[in-house]
Amino acid sequence: MKELRVALIGGGFMGRAHSLALAIAPLAEDLGVTVSKQVLVDATPELAEDLARRLGWTASSGSWEEVVASPDVDIVDICTPPGLHRDIAVAALRAGKHVFCEKPITNNAGEAEEMQAAATASGCVTQVGFNYRHTPAVTFSKQLLDSGRLGEPLQFRGSYLQDAAFNADPHRWRATRATGGSGMVGDIGSHILDIAELLFGDIARVCALTRSKGPNSADGWVSATAQESGDLLDDAGVWIAEFNNGAVGSFSVNGFASGRKNQISFGFDASRGAVEFDWNRREEFRVSYVDEPADHSGFRTIHTNNQHPNGWWRLAGLGTGYVDVMAIEFQKFLRAIVAGARAHPDFGDGARIQRIVEAVRASAATRQWSVVPARPIEAAA
Amino acid sequence: MKELRVALIGGGFMGRAHSLALAIAPLAEDLGVTVSKQVLVDATPELAEDLARRLGWTASSGSWEEVVASPDVDIVDICTPPGLHRDIAVAALRAGKHVFCEKPITNNAGEAEEMQAAATASGCVTQVGFNYRHTPAVTFSKQLLDSGRLGEPLQFRGSYLQDAAFNADPHRWRATRATGGSGMVGDIGSHILDIAELLFGDIARVCALTRSKGPNSADGWVSATAQESGDLLDDAGVWIAEFNNGAVGSFSVNGFASGRKNQISFGFDASRGAVEFDWNRREEFRVSYVDEPADHSGFRTIHTNNQHPNGWWRLAGLGTGYVDVMAIEFQKFLRAIVAGARAHPDFGDGARIQRIVEAVRASAATRQWSVVPARPIEAAA
Amino acid sequence: MKELRVALIGGGFMGRAHSLALAIAPLAEDLGVTVSKQVLVDATPELAEDLARRLGWTASSGSWEEVVASPDVDIVDICTPPGLHRDIAVAALRAGKHVFCEKPITNNAGEAEEMQAAATASGCVTQVGFNYRHTPAVTFSKQLLDSGRLGEPLQFRGSYLQDAAFNADPHRWRATRATGGSGMVGDIGSHILDIAELLFGDIARVCALTRSKGPNSADGWVSATAQESGDLLDDAGVWIAEFNNGAVGSFSVNGFASGRKNQISFGFDASRGAVEFDWNRREEFRVSYVDEPADHSGFRTIHTNNQHPNGWWRLAGLGTGYVDVMAIEFQKFLRAIVAGARAHPDFGDGARIQRIVEAVRASAATRQWSVVPARPIEAAA
Amino acid sequence: MKELRVALIGGGFMGRAHSLALAIAPLAEDLGVTVSKQVLVDATPELAEDLARRLGWTASSGSWEEVVASPDVDIVDICTPPGLHRDIAVAALRAGKHVFCEKPITNNAGEAEEMQAAATASGCVTQVGFNYRHTPAVTFSKQLLDSGRLGEPLQFRGSYLQDAAFNADPHRWRATRATGGSGMVGDIGSHILDIAELLFGDIARVCALTRSKGPNSADGWVSATAQESGDLLDDAGVWIAEFNNGAVGSFSVNGFASGRKNQISFGFDASRGAVEFDWNRREEFRVSYVDEPADHSGFRTIHTNNQHPNGWWRLAGLGTGYVDVMAIEFQKFLRAIVAGARAHPDFGDGARIQRIVEAVRASAATRQWSVVPARPIEAAA
Repeated sequence: MKELRVALIGGGFMGRAHSLALAIAPLAEDLGVTVSKQVLVDATPELAEDLARRLGWTASSGSWEEVVASPDVDIVDICTPPGLHRDIAVAALRAGKHVFCEKPITNNAGEAEEMQAAATASGCVTQVGFNYRHTPAVTFSKQLLDSGRLGEPLQFRGSYLQDAAFNADPHRWRATRATGGSGMVGDIGSHILDIAELLFGDIARVCALTRSKGPNSADGWVSATAQESGDLLDDAGVWIAEFNNGAVGSFSVNGFASGRKNQISFGFDASRGAVEFDWNRREEFRVSYVDEPADHSGFRTIHTNNQHPNGWWRLAGLGTGYVDVMAIEFQKFLRAIVAGARAHPDFGDGARIQRIVEAVRASAATRQWSVVPARPIEAAA
Repeated sequence: MKELRVALIGGGFMGRAHSLALAIAPLAEDLGVTVSKQVLVDATPELAEDLARRLGWTASSGSWEEVVASPDVDIVDICTPPGLHRDIAVAALRAGKHVFCEKPITNNAGEAEEMQAAATASGCVTQVGFNYRHTPAVTFSKQLLDSGRLGEPLQFRGSYLQDAAFNADPHRWRATRATGGSGMVGDIGSHILDIAELLFGDIARVCALTRSKGPNSADGWVSATAQESGDLLDDAGVWIAEFNNGAVGSFSVNGFASGRKNQISFGFDASRGAVEFDWNRREEFRVSYVDEPADHSGFRTIHTNNQHPNGWWRLAGLGTGYVDVMAIEFQKFLRAIVAGARAHPDFGDGARIQRIVEAVRASAATRQWSVVPARPIEAAA
Repeated sequence: MKELRVALIGGGFMGRAHSLALAIAPLAEDLGVTVSKQVLVDATPELAEDLARRLGWTASSGSWEEVVASPDVDIVDICTPPGLHRDIAVAALRAGKHVFCEKPITNNAGEAEEMQAAATASGCVTQVGFNYRHTPAVTFSKQLLDSGRLGEPLQFRGSYLQDAAFNADPHRWRATRATGGSGMVGDIGSHILDIAELLFGDIARVCALTRSKGPNSADGWVSATAQESGDLLDDAGVWIAEFNNGAVGSFSVNGFASGRKNQISFGFDASRGAVEFDWNRREEFRVSYVDEPADHSGFRTIHTNNQHPNGWWRLAGLGTGYVDVMAIEFQKFLRAIVAGARAHPDFGDGARIQRIVEAVRASAATRQWSVVPARPIEAAA
Repeated sequence: MKELRVALIGGGFMGRAHSLALAIAPLAEDLGVTVSKQVLVDATPELAEDLARRLGWTASSGSWEEVVASPDVDIVDICTPPGLHRDIAVAALRAGKHVFCEKPITNNAGEAEEMQAAATASGCVTQVGFNYRHTPAVTFSKQLLDSGRLGEPLQFRGSYLQDAAFNADPHRWRATRATGGSGMVGDIGSHILDIAELLFGDIARVCALTRSKGPNSADGWVSATAQESGDLLDDAGVWIAEFNNGAVGSFSVNGFASGRKNQISFGFDASRGAVEFDWNRREEFRVSYVDEPADHSGFRTIHTNNQHPNGWWRLAGLGTGYVDVMAIEFQKFLRAIVAGARAHPDFGDGARIQRIVEAVRASAATRQWSVVPARPIEAAA
């Protein structure tokens, strides 16, 4: 059986999560391939060695440049702050490696397009880490929409709310643009934009308000730090969007939502039905159909299982966690490599989301609608 | 004990609801006043007589003109389609009656200002039927905000979703502008705008998309009828708003949301806490505070009772219905009359909401931000 | 149109609730009858007069004996502590009045049987105030069971939890047997037993544990008071039951459930489907059917409206409160009087529930199963 | 770093789940040990080889006898039907292996005691696979109870409901006693009993009803098969329990609960607070305290994170799945081995739960209360 050898670049929170997901992805389903957790790279050899031992990687290194060029590596998995994505990804693609890159693809659409071009030139498989779209309930939503059963898409409402701004954050790189931070629109807004386009198709234009705001407290608000440094990142954004198909959407994100625990959620209405999803209750797919008997109108709450896309277990209600959905994400990436097929969302999709993020920001800055550049014909094919 | 004699104009769905609410409002709490359901007016004397008998009104009439001028009436309660509000309200105010008028105050800001002017000139008490804001959980939200306990308002997210477009609608007047329909932004969007301003203060500007859309089916979509008649009403709207205090908001309404049962809901984040409310679970006040112990961060679900504003019962969990909240609304109106005080939301508040509704529509039509006219100093006082 | 003149005996919390419910019951639907709130009786003429004024009763009295014999009264509505029910009800029935009596019918099965016998002898209509069973979602559950759509009843799980024991209770009569208290099994357990038999049929036998327990604090626990007085009332009970049809049930009640706000709830499984109900979300009827497609298995959440039994409004999600369900209860009573038919639950049903309550207590006292006396053939007809 | 070499006996559904959990347990936290998935055993060498390849085990075997005696194995992990547990476990313990055994420990208390004795004699670490108790929210419940913050335990309500009986079941061994099935009381009831004793302490006696019931359909009900074979297993049970500390409990389990998706849930009331837990929303710890301000009484919904026992991530709301909780379970087992300490629940705890299961069944058979044998003094220590 073919073995795929992975190099992980960045062993922080996300690298740890990837380490777990990569450990179970090839076990949970038969992918026809084994995965070798070959080498972990971090800032220094010492740090990398310690992390490799704890997270189950065979080798370690302090040099991503050496590792991405190594003949012992088939896949480069990038978990660094976004500001480092471009250089690593382009080098890895030029060395002929398949690349999995955490989201956002980078913090700059120009860089993202370089990455997309390198991917196209390489012929390698790329994927961007928009993990939440791989939740079985989300994929099932898309299947129902694509099948026509829900009718025509009409209105999408999405939000991603966190209360992380209230807590001391060890991942300080998120706090400023200089250290690679994306702001909340780029960091978490990109996820809900990714799902919106997955389900409703391409967005044509957006109008937005963003905020970098918070009490002038001494307790470490991201924005306070950023504001002092003159390197302002948004803490919050609200925007509306018009889709190419005429549907409309509203979006809300922020990092100061007390009591909201990494809550990405959406609801949408279509002409024959509606769907509701909340990551906090991610096994529950909620759907309502127009054509129910008059005394049975309402939402069904369906716990996803192996009757739904990418569900592993026959018994619904067992429980799907963060690592599980990330493992589903890697299963898709690995299957694409085995099949020599394109993965989704790939660097083209990731670059597109970055363009929308920048359109949101531009709209907020100009107090005007921003048009989202159309997806090139070939990329959409 | 003083008796207040009410004339009800319009005995349809809303007139029936008012009849119930007026029956219990003076019983549920001691207002120091009794209410006499004096006379019900509808389109014909026969219809009015039958409705008066069924809904418990002493007399009936086919002429609102006669009734609003009658010396036997203290209060005129207007439950007609919005297109008739202005004429009735102005006549009643000129006759020295206190006026309760269903929402929206009317479908035209110019008419609304006439009504406001008549109210000011009359010295009578006026109130507009934005009932949902009187839910104890909503009023308690405002108290907590006003007390400073929740900190500074930051982000408001509101929606009002219905699936009524899928059902045959006997209240056909809602279907077209000619018959007094308001569209979804005016009909239900006005409610969530009213709550947004109640809690977060005045809105400075809005940017919106609206839609009049639906399958070209034969089954009676409101918009299909309207589209054929060339008298287009919106079925849906999404918009963002900037408040005077710098906070931001996102809003979504529509009438084709399968499975959504008159669901007006909102969530807001402030710098020291957050609140969540869903009319479908209207007794549940949900609040999260930033300053909880680290292992106790999260939303509390508090069932309102007489520890909260306008709650009638010591025992929480008894159950608060549509009629109850409407009775609370009338209790406030009756108390204002007894006290000779201003009620809220009065015709000034109602006219303001109508201006925002029109700003939303103008923004959608022009694809530009719309500035909301500032509230006059005296009205804000 | 016929007028029914009501006398209310007892103007405390429950009398206030009845006053509201009686005010709207004949307005919400056309019953072909009007209701006159004729006279309110309480312990003293002064108290009665004040309550009558506040609660909208035409007259008042300090003597229930005079009122129940008055020719100006058609219906006697008993809202006193249970220890007084028997005398008032029997006198009223002997005077030819229809009698509505709050639950529990009384605290003693022998007294209940006297009341049942007086009802039978009188030919008058009787009803016991088990209000929660009249919630549209509960009645709809019964309709679906009776129709066979849910298959054969298999397992019932019911609970009624309150946190009232933690609060100072002005209704101190509940605290001891001497003042007419029923204990939690009789007071709230009777409600869930009533619903269990409504849905699953007669209970054959029960096995129970009860408790009168609580910290020996100074803050007014009901049980502490009772224990000191040697007049022990149960605070809590758990029991299992076998139904005549072979189904099984489990039950839990208590008054010291922190955070539980008058939460009566149940779930049941039948061979073709299952239902779940929670009074705290009383408009939500939740049902699951076995015969769904494999990818659509799960509970539907259906908001009741006029498509369901006793629903008043076409628009689902308007909101059904405590007073509304009580008004539905009175509508059934009034309709039975108009039709000359039997109401449910009547004194026979109420006496039966009292027998089960006593079987629960006997089982707990003896540590044995208790057989519930079979319902007489004629009563079951 | 020390390596622990595991042998997995049984590669079915549960063996697959263990394979995933063992893969991540040593990565998610630093246990000071590595785990080697050494050998997988199944019924035939061919089956074992295929499963070992797919589930990531180094070697495979068709003989558990050889494997449990092998010097290359430190831990034997038993995932066979319960009827085979005793022989494998005893042999493994005699060979000096640490043993992890799935639940129920076996289907026979006598066998369970043999296993317990072998464990004691061996000095090895044992653990039984009651995984749900290791959910962070459950462990946090226990910590709060043990700390005294919730006061004195008063009432426990537990249920475990599934709809698996309606689906064709490939794991046919569960269907009959002859093939090792446990019935629903033993299979899923044991889980909720385990949690009840974890939280409320030892159970003194139980009174129960059980059922083996279902429509005589052709579609494969477990009980139908069993009934035909004369080998009757229970489909359902309800029981009440008295704890040694005087608290009471009610319990409900069944396998024919339409729409219930592996739903193990409980609520309990104590004298200063209450807790509610539902595995279907396993990240949500719900707690109410008595000593809240009067206008803030109610349940808090707390998403567990690394502020709670065994939580891996700082960010709450990431998501905890079935595999994650099972990995937490193995982390405890592995830590006990490293520390040379006792694990929980060990074979003594497992044997105790089996005794309670049998007491439940005996009570149902005899229609009497069953006394649960007291835990030996040393076992309780």
